[in-house]
Amino acid sequence: MTAHYSEASKVLMISTSKIHGSEYMSYILDEVLDFIGDAPEILFIPYARPGGISFEEYTGYPQKALTGTGVRVKGIQDFADPKEAIAQAKAIFVGGGNTFLLLKTLYELDLMEPLRQAVTAGTPYMGSSAGSNITGISIGTTNDMPIVYPPSFEALGFVPFNINPHYLDPDPQSKHQGETRATRINEFHFQNQQAVIGLREGSWLRLEAGKLYLKGRHSAPLFEVGKDLRELAPGEVSFLLRS
Amino acid sequence: MTAHYSEASKVLMISTSKIHGSEYMSYILDEVLDFIGDAPEILFIPYARPGGISFEEYTGYPQKALTGTGVRVKGIQDFADPKEAIAQAKAIFVGGGNTFLLLKTLYELDLMEPLRQAVTAGTPYMGSSAGSNITGISIGTTNDMPIVYPPSFEALGFVPFNINPHYLDPDPQSKHQGETRATRINEFHFQNQQAVIGLREGSWLRLEAGKLYLKGRHSAPLFEVGKDLRELAPGEVSFLLRS
Repeated sequence: MTAHYSEASKVLMISTSKIHGSEYMSYILDEVLDFIGDAPEILFIPYARPGGISFEEYTGYPQKALTGTGVRVKGIQDFADPKEAIAQAKAIFVGGGNTFLLLKTLYELDLMEPLRQAVTAGTPYMGSSAGSNITGISIGTTNDMPIVYPPSFEALGFVPFNINPHYLDPDPQSKHQGETRATRINEFHFQNQQAVIGLREGSWLRLEAGKLYLKGRHSAPLFEVGKDLRELAPGEVSFLLRS
Repeated sequence: MTAHYSEASKVLMISTSKIHGSEYMSYILDEVLDFIGDAPEILFIPYARPGGISFEEYTGYPQKALTGTGVRVKGIQDFADPKEAIAQAKAIFVGGGNTFLLLKTLYELDLMEPLRQAVTAGTPYMGSSAGSNITGISIGTTNDMPIVYPPSFEALGFVPFNINPHYLDPDPQSKHQGETRATRINEFHFQNQQAVIGLREGSWLRLEAGKLYLKGRHSAPLFEVGKDLRELAPGEVSFLLRS
């Protein structure tokens, strides 16, 4: 297990905040409310957003999704001291966008260790897309473009494997010569040892009380060095914590 | 124009080494032979290959493609001194694979400056996929996974813009929530200023005698900060050298 894990760690790793034809977070709202328990407020971290809308506007997405649930959402940009905001948070949600930009910003603001301290002490952490990618050992299996240069690819390491969100199965009809997602992950394994789990849209992982579950509507492909690709069915997958 | 350009620069930037249903390089062979002129030998640089086959085996691909043309292909791995191999090369071909691995290897072997010196002195340079991506200002518009951490994203800068090889148009039928290629390039432009040209499979750029041409079977999308997306028709696009 990684150094950034404890029996108290609570982590929800979501492939995508939206599935086709539904509103932001609506498909996962019940899971989110169950996951955060009685936390009255979520600290939202919008740093993955590369532009187009402001951090305030982006924070409005989960605020709207949680309207009527009794749970407030506050953006980290509204706190004078983001480290203190993380230390005091009742629950943390890191939204999607560009993984390189997210990681670079967390390093620049010196927030990696505060996040690790909060989460190993038991603060529930939810991440979607880029926000779930950074819960792994590295960002080496992101799908994003490297639009900025982070000081490292090392991620939060809440789990001892890597995540590929928005996992896409190869299209057998495709005439495109670019690498498939599975080919890219196999290439990752020529240079890296950790297992990689692909999370299809509508899937998520939940870590709590030292147990890990695959949840949602899909099975998930597990890529391991020197082993055949296999599909994990929804259910307990705690063996991945000992990988 | 960038600092790594001269009127003598000859650069062939190819989207892909293979198009659907044809052998390696076959669709572009006439262009390659015309481009290298009377060079009797090509130096092949296989460093982008992340594994699966050896550098020797990979070098066999262009060797086979050029069989019967009178042009020899030698892999850089067969030279005791790769810097000297580049300095002495009659023509250079950098093959595709993983762009992060390619760039990291070139930095580690201290081959970025030797490549710039050779190309600005007139040695013809061909790149396919990752090998064309690194001819731009940065690798910030690669499609590849960041399987290794290079010391910089700065690329060779033979042209003053960025390239997105294997450009893919959005699929209007898709239900996938991951970003489209165009969305990703627009996100790049929230953080970077240089123009980006998308090269569809079967397209290439040719720089020679201070002029730049888009060639092949497709138009090419041009992304510029603050301007509407537009399609460039095949033909002279030298205005991009002054961007």
